[in-house]
Amino acid sequence: MSESTSKKERVVLAYSGGLDTSVAIGWIAERTGAEVIAMAVDVGQGGEDLEVIRQRALDCGAVEAYVADAREEFATEYCMPALKANAMYMDAYPLVSALSRPVIVKHLVRAARQFGATTVSHGSTGKGNDQVRFEVGITSIAPDLRCIAPVRDLALTRDVAIDYANKHDLPIATTKNNPFSIDQNVWGRAIETGFLEDIWNEPTKDVYSYTDDPTYPPLPDEVTITFREGVPVAIDGQAVTPLQAIQEMNRRAGAQGVGRIDIVEDRLVGIKSREVYEAPGAMALIAAHRELENVTVEREQARFKKGVGQRWTELVYDGQWFSPLKNSLDVFIDDTQRYVSGDIRMVMHGGRATVTGRRSESSLYDFNLATYDTGDAFDQSHAKGFIEIYGMTSKLSAARDVSFGNGVDLSTVPTIKA
Amino acid sequence: MSESTSKKERVVLAYSGGLDTSVAIGWIAERTGAEVIAMAVDVGQGGEDLEVIRQRALDCGAVEAYVADAREEFATEYCMPALKANAMYMDAYPLVSALSRPVIVKHLVRAARQFGATTVSHGSTGKGNDQVRFEVGITSIAPDLRCIAPVRDLALTRDVAIDYANKHDLPIATTKNNPFSIDQNVWGRAIETGFLEDIWNEPTKDVYSYTDDPTYPPLPDEVTITFREGVPVAIDGQAVTPLQAIQEMNRRAGAQGVGRIDIVEDRLVGIKSREVYEAPGAMALIAAHRELENVTVEREQARFKKGVGQRWTELVYDGQWFSPLKNSLDVFIDDTQRYVSGDIRMVMHGGRATVTGRRSESSLYDFNLATYDTGDAFDQSHAKGFIEIYGMTSKLSAARDVSFGNGVDLSTVPTIKA
Amino acid sequence: MSESTSKKERVVLAYSGGLDTSVAIGWIAERTGAEVIAMAVDVGQGGEDLEVIRQRALDCGAVEAYVADAREEFATEYCMPALKANAMYMDAYPLVSALSRPVIVKHLVRAARQFGATTVSHGSTGKGNDQVRFEVGITSIAPDLRCIAPVRDLALTRDVAIDYANKHDLPIATTKNNPFSIDQNVWGRAIETGFLEDIWNEPTKDVYSYTDDPTYPPLPDEVTITFREGVPVAIDGQAVTPLQAIQEMNRRAGAQGVGRIDIVEDRLVGIKSREVYEAPGAMALIAAHRELENVTVEREQARFKKGVGQRWTELVYDGQWFSPLKNSLDVFIDDTQRYVSGDIRMVMHGGRATVTGRRSESSLYDFNLATYDTGDAFDQSHAKGFIEIYGMTSKLSAARDVSFGNGVDLSTVPTIKA
Amino acid sequence: MSESTSKKERVVLAYSGGLDTSVAIGWIAERTGAEVIAMAVDVGQGGEDLEVIRQRALDCGAVEAYVADAREEFATEYCMPALKANAMYMDAYPLVSALSRPVIVKHLVRAARQFGATTVSHGSTGKGNDQVRFEVGITSIAPDLRCIAPVRDLALTRDVAIDYANKHDLPIATTKNNPFSIDQNVWGRAIETGFLEDIWNEPTKDVYSYTDDPTYPPLPDEVTITFREGVPVAIDGQAVTPLQAIQEMNRRAGAQGVGRIDIVEDRLVGIKSREVYEAPGAMALIAAHRELENVTVEREQARFKKGVGQRWTELVYDGQWFSPLKNSLDVFIDDTQRYVSGDIRMVMHGGRATVTGRRSESSLYDFNLATYDTGDAFDQSHAKGFIEIYGMTSKLSAARDVSFGNGVDLSTVPTIKA
Repeated sequence: MSESTSKKERVVLAYSGGLDTSVAIGWIAERTGAEVIAMAVDVGQGGEDLEVIRQRALDCGAVEAYVADAREEFATEYCMPALKANAMYMDAYPLVSALSRPVIVKHLVRAARQFGATTVSHGSTGKGNDQVRFEVGITSIAPDLRCIAPVRDLALTRDVAIDYANKHDLPIATTKNNPFSIDQNVWGRAIETGFLEDIWNEPTKDVYSYTDDPTYPPLPDEVTITFREGVPVAIDGQAVTPLQAIQEMNRRAGAQGVGRIDIVEDRLVGIKSREVYEAPGAMALIAAHRELENVTVEREQARFKKGVGQRWTELVYDGQWFSPLKNSLDVFIDDTQRYVSGDIRMVMHGGRATVTGRRSESSLYDFNLATYDTGDAFDQSHAKGFIEIYGMTSKLSAARDVSFGNGVDLSTVPTIKA
Repeated sequence: MSESTSKKERVVLAYSGGLDTSVAIGWIAERTGAEVIAMAVDVGQGGEDLEVIRQRALDCGAVEAYVADAREEFATEYCMPALKANAMYMDAYPLVSALSRPVIVKHLVRAARQFGATTVSHGSTGKGNDQVRFEVGITSIAPDLRCIAPVRDLALTRDVAIDYANKHDLPIATTKNNPFSIDQNVWGRAIETGFLEDIWNEPTKDVYSYTDDPTYPPLPDEVTITFREGVPVAIDGQAVTPLQAIQEMNRRAGAQGVGRIDIVEDRLVGIKSREVYEAPGAMALIAAHRELENVTVEREQARFKKGVGQRWTELVYDGQWFSPLKNSLDVFIDDTQRYVSGDIRMVMHGGRATVTGRRSESSLYDFNLATYDTGDAFDQSHAKGFIEIYGMTSKLSAARDVSFGNGVDLSTVPTIKA
Repeated sequence: MSESTSKKERVVLAYSGGLDTSVAIGWIAERTGAEVIAMAVDVGQGGEDLEVIRQRALDCGAVEAYVADAREEFATEYCMPALKANAMYMDAYPLVSALSRPVIVKHLVRAARQFGATTVSHGSTGKGNDQVRFEVGITSIAPDLRCIAPVRDLALTRDVAIDYANKHDLPIATTKNNPFSIDQNVWGRAIETGFLEDIWNEPTKDVYSYTDDPTYPPLPDEVTITFREGVPVAIDGQAVTPLQAIQEMNRRAGAQGVGRIDIVEDRLVGIKSREVYEAPGAMALIAAHRELENVTVEREQARFKKGVGQRWTELVYDGQWFSPLKNSLDVFIDDTQRYVSGDIRMVMHGGRATVTGRRSESSLYDFNLATYDTGDAFDQSHAKGFIEIYGMTSKLSAARDVSFGNGVDLSTVPTIKA
Repeated sequence: MSESTSKKERVVLAYSGGLDTSVAIGWIAERTGAEVIAMAVDVGQGGEDLEVIRQRALDCGAVEAYVADAREEFATEYCMPALKANAMYMDAYPLVSALSRPVIVKHLVRAARQFGATTVSHGSTGKGNDQVRFEVGITSIAPDLRCIAPVRDLALTRDVAIDYANKHDLPIATTKNNPFSIDQNVWGRAIETGFLEDIWNEPTKDVYSYTDDPTYPPLPDEVTITFREGVPVAIDGQAVTPLQAIQEMNRRAGAQGVGRIDIVEDRLVGIKSREVYEAPGAMALIAAHRELENVTVEREQARFKKGVGQRWTELVYDGQWFSPLKNSLDVFIDDTQRYVSGDIRMVMHGGRATVTGRRSESSLYDFNLATYDTGDAFDQSHAKGFIEIYGMTSKLSAARDVSFGNGVDLSTVPTIKA
């Protein structure tokens, strides 16, 4: 495996094993004269064995082909920050694909460095978010590398790909006509296109794979998740890694139909698209994490963190994982997680993941202050002064309103019935 | 009904018909020497007939007693703005009690004006949010009025109230020992205290009243909600007022167990408390409204509106309904609702309210731009230039990082398997 | 003046009268085969008579040439909203050029409609903000129109323009070698390029035109500006239009050297550039307006408005004048200006514009509450309760910190000297 | 110095050496029966020798009296974070008093711990911000300590204090009738009350002490400030500590009349007050720091940091220095300062501090991208695609506006002059 003797330019291609990227190997080589190195990254997408995929890349003409098991890395360094941020784009989508792009980018760049490639390539189209995530990601850690997207830049359409594969007898099926475009990893699964492009259509059952139908659930499943500084460390008392936590919750929450999402979404490229997702583990973990934050994070910190989390989510959705602002938001968020430790008990059933109990040594919930029972430690005598000063600015404004004849119009209040 | 001949000070009391405020009538009169006017406001809380309540107030010693049916007013002027804001405090609580306080305040102030009262009174304790909402609300529309809370200011504890009622033979039950403190209106129902104060305890079934158990739901219920400028105007094609929309959705979503909420919440007075809510109609309507916004509101407007909605929600939760900022946020939100018109189809079942279709003449979803099929109108050639310039600042930062030896550390990426 | 008989495509060109756009008339016609209509918009940039400019356009080959005096419109509909927003990009730049683009855009589109043009053209380069402001502005009010920028799209470089002008003997000077690129209007003046591109260089005196050197000022100049709902309506008691207010303040503040700005600025296209501005009237008016807001706007409204103003400013800088979000921010800002009425007395001298007095019937400053003298109406007894509850969340957090051994480290405090 | 043998309660009093706190020593002792320990903290306020002050406290009846030189600590740990945040409350006030309270609090608490005190006391009134800063600060690091403010809680008015001092023959002047209330430290000086309470009055010359009159300045003073990670480390090439940097800039900027501030300000306790400040060093350093950030901080990071800086400033103004959110904002801000290193050249003259040059090895300003000269490395061909996609959402909105008849009204544009 010579890394330096070749005189040819080298291109590292993000390789999925599917039709488009299999054809892209030869297509890029033909169009650009470069050698193509295929790189497949396992982010928990399941499907074929990585070694099979690697061999296929070589069979399709790659000069080198590598596979990387990035599952633990992805879970720990990408999914856990998203969990700490309670990242839900448009309050709905837990950033499934958006999270996997930067880890793949990192592996692509590393391969480019190792094998002296000047260009990185990916299979995304020219109208989606992923092209931006790949290319901005790449130039944000390796500003000298060039990017090429054969579908967008070299006219490699689906029809062209099928013809090319048939003509060159590539070892890849060309007949399978999947009605959907799918992307999946351990954090979730994204489904788009096909009849879903009519936004009045309901998703059919065959759309889903990570989740069972919540309409006919099995018996309720109670789980206790233990967090430490915002990260799940045990499930029902069993220690877990972040990857194991996600996998276990995918299995159990998925069985209850938790985590199906169906939204019209604002893409970075300016259009709205219809997206269906499944993210059982992610959604259950975020629900648990949020409630543990409710118990352990101070009010003003929590209120500000919502805005930080929103911006974090937008940046990651928009392909800015490696940007300076994203990094600064991360240190903010990490600082808020110091005490987000404890247990959340949750019942999953019929599409719902409902928190039923919370327990934490670092809780800010104080029974003695909260109770209305005997033992109440809250000194109510402070309230009058608080209200007087807290309401002062509104009161002074109101007095002005009244003096200008702009006071709240009481005449609209219906007549009092005597 | 003389309004001016009395020489005594007058106090308008927010009267619920329950033990505390029934006793308060006489208690305030005794302690302050004032005449007490009882005012009951119907915000859809159900329960006893208002005329019965009115008579009880008189029987308890009120010099005047009035009742107001504020249900349409509450739905239209208070719940609908909350719906437009997608108001969910801490991403969970649709502001049930917080919304009803200002409408009650308005009626109290109107009564005070009508009957020449100088003081307004309410039954809240000194450690909750409602005292703030009442008193800041009152001084924010009538800065000259004084407020008095007998529980907090005149030592009217529960035990004292029972003794007083028994001693004076007041026409109100004193034996019923409700384990919970409950507040309800057409937008939802709030339950707190009792064994719920142990936050590891799960709510028991008897806690709920607006919703059936989602564990054993009836058959799925499909509904189509038509909105006009952010407000529901028809359900399944039948024209509805805001009040009717909420009532109908309460009934149907409630039957499916939609809208149960259980959180630890940050009170304005600085403590965390455990709250259980039911808001079937509110939660279903908000889910529908949000998705219609996804379809009809421009991306940057939508992103900014989230922050506006959060601040709106905090202000209303914090008792600042009548504040200048709340008003300015309202005009912002109203401006965003111009095109939030159309139909949302939703299936309610087993605690879930799931949008399954959206249809709008003012949709910004453009099939021709979104589709990956033939007819695609999106010019992908623009993407390359977009990405280059969009990613420029991160790329330049990355180049600096690299030159300072601070580039992303690729050595942490696991070794490539050849 | 036939508007409909022509069979040729028509292009409306934003015409300045300078070399680039004079050459562009013929250049566009040659390259595209279209007829060119020249449109010059007076936004207070001064310089040549508009009729002279109109004639030059015709002499350069325009089939039609129009001029519009948009000065009052610009001042009222563009500068006044910026004043209400206290718009200062990066806390420094009052949006001089960014404000004029949308008004020019509106006139270009109107001309395009009137004369049946399908394309609008402007003289901006491909690396600045103005191309974005023109083109996004145009498609944001006339999404069907196309845009063309001859410098960027048709290779009309400066050298090419000089050659072309000489060859065709156009009535425009080609020898004048201005070292700077300048844009000016009644709101201010922007200067860039040349030796200013070395950011260590100080601007030389010849850079400035609207302002005299503040180092050697005349005697101090005291002015009283009267505002009504955020807009100046009188200066020293004399009623003024918005345009007159700006012009008068340009003259007087300019004589004192007020409003020189020199910053490194973040462009929308991703690069940093060095910009010098003069905006004497704008800066003085904003200083006055801000202080009147301090006196008349409620605290929480003011705090939130700062964020709204920042976003408004970014949107306008970024060419999104006609965007939905910008519009919603406008209604928010307008709502905050209801009481921003009154007088500001200001002394201008030596580059400073210093508020020295404020007076308003709608003031929220209450002498009786503020004074420490006799007559103090502030009830200090409320403070204790306020502080106790206001500080509650931090106190509870601190108690947790202490219990976890994370309390503030007092050992770093230097030893006490006895 | 016995710390444990005393049976009496002990109170640590923040001691300034002035009349109010000198009288408070005996007053607190009489009213509460406690022993009073006086603690004077030097934050650069100048004035009397600390040893003199210490002796006066003992002469006034303190059982112990201590002084601490906290100047370096204050400059490094309090003023520098404010500089990094560009902290200007209401865009005007660099938090002079608000910054010194937490460092004093820390010393008070340390003294309380060392000497077994249960209570901390301060001389603030019940209508200002400082009482909140002291008391919330104290309970935020020592939630078990109690606070007492003799002026507010023990009726120690000014007249009472004078009588007491005369009667007990305390070694403190009671005749000096300063018309103003003044607070000063190395970061600046605050002046209020007196005739300034009439907000139409201009400050008279005797109000100022840190700054000379800018109307008659000496010759311009050019300075070069070198920053490292947001902190000044050298002035004109001479290494300085943070304290030295502030002192040197106070001297030089003060001589030029830089840093006078006069605003109506929103207090935390709900009223507006008129405040005059002088902060020559702070204002000059912030101006320099801001421009160095313009050169070295990435655009989106800078835009978001403005909001973070505003919230940081509000929290510190509002007495929440030790709050969890303030801490999280600090880590965010620190992360943004990584590259804020380099030189700022500045000319100070006649009240202005004008940046005239900037130079940084970590600059993001790229001459080759910015220049319009030969050597331009910016690829303008990307702009067209960028604009098309960047403007997409506004364009689609506009198309909807047009189709609904809500397009921008061009009929308001004045008639074109042919």
